[in-house]
Amino acid sequence: MNNKPGEIEIPDTHLDLLTSYYPATLTTIRCNDGNLSTNPVSFLWEQGAILISTLKSRMKYKNILADPRVAVCVVSPQNRMHYIELRGKATLEDDPQAQLNNRMFQLMTGQDAPQDMDPPGAERAIIRLVPEQVSCPRVYGGRFHNMEKP
Amino acid sequence: MNNKPGEIEIPDTHLDLLTSYYPATLTTIRCNDGNLSTNPVSFLWEQGAILISTLKSRMKYKNILADPRVAVCVVSPQNRMHYIELRGKATLEDDPQAQLNNRMFQLMTGQDAPQDMDPPGAERAIIRLVPEQVSCPRVYGGRFHNMEKP
Repeated sequence: MNNKPGEIEIPDTHLDLLTSYYPATLTTIRCNDGNLSTNPVSFLWEQGAILISTLKSRMKYKNILADPRVAVCVVSPQNRMHYIELRGKATLEDDPQAQLNNRMFQLMTGQDAPQDMDPPGAERAIIRLVPEQVSCPRVYGGRFHNMEKP
Repeated sequence: MNNKPGEIEIPDTHLDLLTSYYPATLTTIRCNDGNLSTNPVSFLWEQGAILISTLKSRMKYKNILADPRVAVCVVSPQNRMHYIELRGKATLEDDPQAQLNNRMFQLMTGQDAPQDMDPPGAERAIIRLVPEQVSCPRVYGGRFHNMEKP
């Protein structure tokens, strides 16, 4: 699939990966040396966009500021063959009241976010990815399904 | 940390992530449109290198051929705050007998790899990453530890 932003369709078979509060990985291009960098992140899927809360002091924020290309990948913790990949260019928005982070905390834990979640003076921002491309292949066979050491 | 290839040290606290046969994600840069692309992969950690078996027909092979920059990330299935990230430039090697794939199958399942694992005519290759950079932060607090829907 290859769509313009906002036109993307997520197959019903893979929507669970975006709504189950599984961790994702976010990959950016490091602004200082050009290497790729991947980190686990929590996210919300809302109105066709991946939303990630971060601090402006974080490398991922600086990287996206310099080059907006990102990839987000969510793999089912129960089955590594069940996954979705979202690609495109992210945008950044200020979130001085940490509203996204507080909302995610509430949704994911059922509790209000603690007041001291961020260090004093920290500035929150929202990474928003309206995916241009989505990939969720049906992986052959599943022979490596859920492997751990035998 | 920022080392020359081969000089990298993996902290004892995070070595389990490389030896437990957990799935990793591999990110490459798509050779056709420049977008980042992340996929779950199985890997072996051997003599300071990440080894991934792939087919030469796969996008990830073509991407690395065009631009060797990759990131590999392994997140503990038990604790999303426990993870390791390896960055650098990958190299490609032919593996016409699929030796790496067969060896991984044996190690990870305890069984011999089936003869028909690949389609007829498929050509195997090895993606090798001797990491230039490793990152395994101790994430604060663990407030989002192992979240699923409450």
